[in-house]
Amino acid sequence: MPEPAYRAIDIIRRKRDRQELSGAEIESFIRGYTTGDIPDYQAAAWLMAAWIRGLSHAETAALTNAMLRSGEVLDLSEFPARKVDKHSTGGVGDKTSLVLAPLAAAGGLIVPMISGRGLGHTGGTLDKLESIPGFNVNLPVAEFRRVLHACGCCMIGQTAEIAPADRKLYALRDVTSTVESPYLICASIMSKKLAEGIDALVLDVKTGSGAFMKKEEDAAFLAELMVETGQRMGKKVVALITDMDQPLGFKVGNSLEVEEVLETLRGTGPQDLRQLCLELGGWMFHLGGAAATVVEGKKTAENLIQSGRALQKFRQMVEMQGGDQQVVDDPDRLPRAKHALEIVSSRSGYVKAIGCEAVGTACVVVGCGREKKEDSVDPAVGIVLHKKVGDRVGAGEPLCTIHYNSETRAARARQLLQESYCVADAPPGHVRPLVHRVIQRAREAN
Amino acid sequence: MPEPAYRAIDIIRRKRDRQELSGAEIESFIRGYTTGDIPDYQAAAWLMAAWIRGLSHAETAALTNAMLRSGEVLDLSEFPARKVDKHSTGGVGDKTSLVLAPLAAAGGLIVPMISGRGLGHTGGTLDKLESIPGFNVNLPVAEFRRVLHACGCCMIGQTAEIAPADRKLYALRDVTSTVESPYLICASIMSKKLAEGIDALVLDVKTGSGAFMKKEEDAAFLAELMVETGQRMGKKVVALITDMDQPLGFKVGNSLEVEEVLETLRGTGPQDLRQLCLELGGWMFHLGGAAATVVEGKKTAENLIQSGRALQKFRQMVEMQGGDQQVVDDPDRLPRAKHALEIVSSRSGYVKAIGCEAVGTACVVVGCGREKKEDSVDPAVGIVLHKKVGDRVGAGEPLCTIHYNSETRAARARQLLQESYCVADAPPGHVRPLVHRVIQRAREAN
Repeated sequence: MPEPAYRAIDIIRRKRDRQELSGAEIESFIRGYTTGDIPDYQAAAWLMAAWIRGLSHAETAALTNAMLRSGEVLDLSEFPARKVDKHSTGGVGDKTSLVLAPLAAAGGLIVPMISGRGLGHTGGTLDKLESIPGFNVNLPVAEFRRVLHACGCCMIGQTAEIAPADRKLYALRDVTSTVESPYLICASIMSKKLAEGIDALVLDVKTGSGAFMKKEEDAAFLAELMVETGQRMGKKVVALITDMDQPLGFKVGNSLEVEEVLETLRGTGPQDLRQLCLELGGWMFHLGGAAATVVEGKKTAENLIQSGRALQKFRQMVEMQGGDQQVVDDPDRLPRAKHALEIVSSRSGYVKAIGCEAVGTACVVVGCGREKKEDSVDPAVGIVLHKKVGDRVGAGEPLCTIHYNSETRAARARQLLQESYCVADAPPGHVRPLVHRVIQRAREAN
Repeated sequence: MPEPAYRAIDIIRRKRDRQELSGAEIESFIRGYTTGDIPDYQAAAWLMAAWIRGLSHAETAALTNAMLRSGEVLDLSEFPARKVDKHSTGGVGDKTSLVLAPLAAAGGLIVPMISGRGLGHTGGTLDKLESIPGFNVNLPVAEFRRVLHACGCCMIGQTAEIAPADRKLYALRDVTSTVESPYLICASIMSKKLAEGIDALVLDVKTGSGAFMKKEEDAAFLAELMVETGQRMGKKVVALITDMDQPLGFKVGNSLEVEEVLETLRGTGPQDLRQLCLELGGWMFHLGGAAATVVEGKKTAENLIQSGRALQKFRQMVEMQGGDQQVVDDPDRLPRAKHALEIVSSRSGYVKAIGCEAVGTACVVVGCGREKKEDSVDPAVGIVLHKKVGDRVGAGEPLCTIHYNSETRAARARQLLQESYCVADAPPGHVRPLVHRVIQRAREAN
């Protein structure tokens, strides 16, 4: 075996000493770690040095590229239309992916969407899709391609071939306190998304009490990093910093959220969810070359909902991925929880705030998500909000309803929910906008 | 098994976030790592966080204590006299330990000295001792104690029982670029030394071109840290910052250095080596309670050399540790290299500088040390300097002589040595003092 061109120990030392690593050094380190030539303990030391010292834009792009190249990169050049995707950093009640994939495909774009499971207090696209009886998110690449050809969109989970370095690094970060680094988060997200072979990417970076980045400045920093990284890799990328200070829409929980997705595709969904889908969809059409401006893209999106073509595309995707397409017309075919429990307000007033992370955690507790990795998910359960921030509420009026299958779990969720609603005498002075800002380029190179 | 009181991941995160760890947290982490409950990758992440963030005095003392308590701590309370040791951070031609252990024991102190092997370009006490035919540095603890009782000093290598956490951590630091941290170096040195059950410790912290700490401020920082740590653990500790800008004495190499030790114990050794031994010895006697002042301690040391009692003690120790005590009177019984090669000056002038690390490396190259861990050491070979900094030299006059057994090795060493001598027209304006400073307390708590 030839001597490696770069020694792991030197790459660790140089990062430790704030020196900028070359693309070749980062490539060599990631390749070595993926093959197992570089052991976990060297990768752990490097991750901590990178966490503390940070990475330059060039290093972040090189890391993303190396992780991307650690596995298979889909070649979708056979498709004449632009390949576009959307990614969210995770929230509570955030079901926009299920609306946007068929919506964008109905407008002529190709959406090769590879998604994840619920993480912490946030929901996961795959868990939501799987609440549709029969829906298969584990398609092999050939089948994924076939669905894309026929339908224009396909929604699956990560395969073993995609960015294996990310899977290995993520597991290591999880046990070495090196998760919350914008540089490492950026490389993790962007390597997986760009492995989809896309031309353009719309990022939905959440901020607020229900987001991983509670502070807007942190969300903006990550957003700029991802935009810069994507652009350095020759992609069209935009990031919207959007509000996650309260759940999106009214329904939280897997089959409940699919229900709300259907309402939205019909044009009858909640206002905030519809607005966010139109904003993100507008950008997808614009970056995908199907609309000259974002405003025009939003108009396209509205028309596709209005005409029923977006819903029709959803139906087609469900059918092609093995799901029961009758749920589209009859949502009662979705799994239903056995019991429901209303949480009522003890006083009258206005909803001043909803502890969004607490709602997400209550949802996990009731069975929508996993408290441990090996837990299974209950597709039927969840929470339906009746009041959102700014709403007037009377004493004894319901704030939300828990849909549950286990009394014990419901009792724990109830406590969390009771504590999460803040009802005050006066309406809140300021209601946060849904879209805080749009980031199209990093403020400055570093 | 009960849940551990502290989770490794939290201890890593807190160090990463510049929070001060409690003694209990550090103790828990080191215990977990020693038993194997905490894996290498978590220890590696923690080491990097500690390297970059640094440790407070309290954390450094807690780490030292936890590493010390990871193994056996010798109880030498049965000895009425003070137990005193000396430790050097490593240099070229530094053979003071071999002079000081018998010297201090001859003056009534107990010297339970546990030493190391050569590291990098520096020599190791154990390698030097083993050049004496038969000398056994691997004594079990019971035998170590027996020699101490009979002789007052005993010089051995680290045993498996002493500070196992340090051995494990050191091996990990070596492959994760976390060696050169004053905090981690301090804990490593002090945990091993204090496991000897000593009351007082004299530290010789080297600075200059042949030292690990080239800059005096770095040496002083480490020295203060070790003094502070030792004092927090209830020991009498002093540190001397001493010069390692050129080799100590004239002889570098294992049996050559034993020869120079014998000369020094006879009172005929090189001036610099003798002076340093008297300074360090003076402090040993003072801290050990055998002299009211350091000046008085130096006087005691001089007298013990003058009277031949120090040499007699050396002979006794050699004999009790299985060595050929006849070498004391007949150094020609030490291993001798087959060949010698003189390096001569190409011009006349004054020696302005000697690249001290280069001399150490030349010595390793010729066979005194190990280029790889598994290499064996040739006790016979080495380098004898004829000129030191400030000396006048004529054209064609020898600067030094290589004593060697392998032509190839000698050729490589020759090149290093030729480049290491700098001869100039004028004598150097300033010759660095042998002792730069004495540190008895840390400047300020942190």
